[in-house]
Amino acid sequence: MARNTQVSADHNAPAITKILAQFVATHPSRGWSDAVDHEAHRTFLNWLGCAVGAAQHESVEAALAAVTMLQPAAQATVLGRSLKVDMASAALLNGISSHTFDFDDTHLKTIIHPAGPVASAALALAEHMGCSGRELIDALVLGIDVSCRVGNAMYPEHYDRGWHITGSTGTLGAAAACARLLKLDVQQTAMALGIAASQPVGMREQFGTMTKPFHPGGAARAGLMSALLASKGFTASPKALEAPRGMMQTVSTKNDWSEITHELGQRFEISYNSYKPFACGIVIHPSIDACAQLRAQGVRPEQVERVELRVHSLVLELTGKKEPQDGLQAKFSVYHGCAAGLTFGRAAEEEFADEVVTRADMVALRRKVVATVDNSIDEASVDVVAVLHDGSRKHVFVEHAIGSVQNPMTDAMLEAKFHGMADQVISATQTSALIASAWKLADAPNLRALCALSAGIT
Amino acid sequence: MARNTQVSADHNAPAITKILAQFVATHPSRGWSDAVDHEAHRTFLNWLGCAVGAAQHESVEAALAAVTMLQPAAQATVLGRSLKVDMASAALLNGISSHTFDFDDTHLKTIIHPAGPVASAALALAEHMGCSGRELIDALVLGIDVSCRVGNAMYPEHYDRGWHITGSTGTLGAAAACARLLKLDVQQTAMALGIAASQPVGMREQFGTMTKPFHPGGAARAGLMSALLASKGFTASPKALEAPRGMMQTVSTKNDWSEITHELGQRFEISYNSYKPFACGIVIHPSIDACAQLRAQGVRPEQVERVELRVHSLVLELTGKKEPQDGLQAKFSVYHGCAAGLTFGRAAEEEFADEVVTRADMVALRRKVVATVDNSIDEASVDVVAVLHDGSRKHVFVEHAIGSVQNPMTDAMLEAKFHGMADQVISATQTSALIASAWKLADAPNLRALCALSAGIT
Repeated sequence: MARNTQVSADHNAPAITKILAQFVATHPSRGWSDAVDHEAHRTFLNWLGCAVGAAQHESVEAALAAVTMLQPAAQATVLGRSLKVDMASAALLNGISSHTFDFDDTHLKTIIHPAGPVASAALALAEHMGCSGRELIDALVLGIDVSCRVGNAMYPEHYDRGWHITGSTGTLGAAAACARLLKLDVQQTAMALGIAASQPVGMREQFGTMTKPFHPGGAARAGLMSALLASKGFTASPKALEAPRGMMQTVSTKNDWSEITHELGQRFEISYNSYKPFACGIVIHPSIDACAQLRAQGVRPEQVERVELRVHSLVLELTGKKEPQDGLQAKFSVYHGCAAGLTFGRAAEEEFADEVVTRADMVALRRKVVATVDNSIDEASVDVVAVLHDGSRKHVFVEHAIGSVQNPMTDAMLEAKFHGMADQVISATQTSALIASAWKLADAPNLRALCALSAGIT
Repeated sequence: MARNTQVSADHNAPAITKILAQFVATHPSRGWSDAVDHEAHRTFLNWLGCAVGAAQHESVEAALAAVTMLQPAAQATVLGRSLKVDMASAALLNGISSHTFDFDDTHLKTIIHPAGPVASAALALAEHMGCSGRELIDALVLGIDVSCRVGNAMYPEHYDRGWHITGSTGTLGAAAACARLLKLDVQQTAMALGIAASQPVGMREQFGTMTKPFHPGGAARAGLMSALLASKGFTASPKALEAPRGMMQTVSTKNDWSEITHELGQRFEISYNSYKPFACGIVIHPSIDACAQLRAQGVRPEQVERVELRVHSLVLELTGKKEPQDGLQAKFSVYHGCAAGLTFGRAAEEEFADEVVTRADMVALRRKVVATVDNSIDEASVDVVAVLHDGSRKHVFVEHAIGSVQNPMTDAMLEAKFHGMADQVISATQTSALIASAWKLADAPNLRALCALSAGIT
């Protein structure tokens, strides 16, 4: 009933909950550089495209069917669908859809996918409450800063232990963003973070199932509700994050508090956000990039005798599937990544469709790829040589793949990625209008026009 | 990005998720003894009284105000109030109210308060779906078996680490109960448990705030939604509980799998449920019981010169507050417990009201209580001597306080406790009818009559 046996508790943590609440409640609107503000727009745009793109996926269908059993009020848009549900359910559903393709953003230091929980909660609340686009962008920057800083403090022990860090820190980020939108004061914001602290979501064992994308959705919903509860006077511990039996010490034995306090309000974690050009795990990206560069140099699949890859051992450990049988398996095949890069110059969701993966030319081309481990090559790099039938050799070395922080996708690339996902769902014309609306988000007096464009046409 | 560094993972766990799913989906209705079935009714009755009793508490007010922002459909009753909300929100609100007085049931081996998550989820779903009382009782027995067995496996490490075990295991119990009510098959039930496994709720740091009762409420809501999602085809890992990066190994380094499989379907954890006669922590109960026995023997407060307690050191460590200033502090004062026992012969929520705690006669009587540590006395026992002004000494030794498994509250005591909580909320007449309805729960064709009686009169 009452042992006091918690191992290695830190009783001297700084007042993290209060410090973050103070930051979220009082940091000035647009209190950051133009570059940070533009990155926030890129983060939002990328998230929006992913959510609209997956709107018809069976995971969203199933979740929507469950939510419908609650007979939800029509408050906030389900992205990519001509449908509104209550704002908490919209946060859940848009969080699920945005992570379904595994094509959303990545904060590389922690592997957090930060927009899923934060943007899903913030947009649903902002739409229903009539907030401005500026308020939404502010909430997004601050919410992502909260979740990624908490992630920095706990990573990697927390992740190694089994937590899907996107969901476990995402509840806090979503609560922070919603507290900001609700204009909660410092004390109420601390309560919102406190209530959220009791609700970390997500275990890594769920990878490969619908519950993986449920994690950002569940975190979005829980964070939004935490802020609503706090706004009505619901209370939590003012030390809910940092206390010995608070959230962080309960879910991680590593907690570097300085990751939360250092340069808070000066350095913004959203600056380090990255966006996937390819719809698969990041270790394959350099190889796809290299093969797409070979294609751009004029190499055609039918000319190829052999493709020689030199990669870090991790690449084959994680994605060494030589003969993938379907789209999901192909996402774990560096061989398929190379074949897609050479054949299409890209590897979006459609290049991982079952019917593409099983095509005879793709099977044949994958068999021509020979991968060799060379741990002098960084895991973020690759060395590729295409040996052609005429005996000539074409060489490409990729140090940082496209989509990395060092070599980011351009705004135009993000737009093309968005079109690739959304055109089939809401039409190319509507997608173009939606993209334009997203770039001008900070000027929008409310979210009505953007949400109307985000809704499906059927 | 991909270390495989989880410490001491057990890769050879039995298939707990599947085993529990099989049990929940296929165990026969009323497949247990009459004693177990009666205990289920007692558990339900005690939970119902607690929930109705706290219906007007500010924690419920605040949570209801937040839920109201979602404009919920009128599907299921908020106990003690003339109001319905969607079934998931009803699960949340009734879970909060049932734990607000800290007066609900206790599975002593794990300190889980099992009914809060399980009954709150099951009643809300059963009411809306038109289930029978028999189905509800079955779901309650099976759901509590799931949460308490998972608790047995992880306790005490999981609790010591900082988890409020009621909420962290409660999501699983609630999901199991709802899966049963929805008549999910084994595979779908495994998915319901799997989705729930990503949503443990509750940190001990929240004790003393509204987020403590939020834990069973949040667990009830999450479990109910997990079952709804599974019923619509949402997927999770079929090893979500036991895998190295599944729920149990992520939140506890101790996992005794045999606690889950041993005598499953033969021994039922609800048999070991207990009910608090007094509205405070269990370590004070022997002292209150002893002083109430002295009062029953004719000892009056004005006769008392001194009360000598001999107690285990834990009692003073946890409840040694000599001069409590309000009701909440009094719950951590064995001295107030003794004064209440001697003065009123009871210590329900009203004996912990601020105006009672600060009464001059209570202050004076508390000061006459002298507590001495004697670790030869078990923490569940107490030795009390009342020294009267005439020099006589009255002695009571309590080995097992009333309310313990060894010395359970009688059905009549449970009814009196129910009246003490509910009479002021829904009237004494309606409370009597509600109690009668709860005892006959297994015969009810649906939950309409019981829920109507549970609703407030205003």
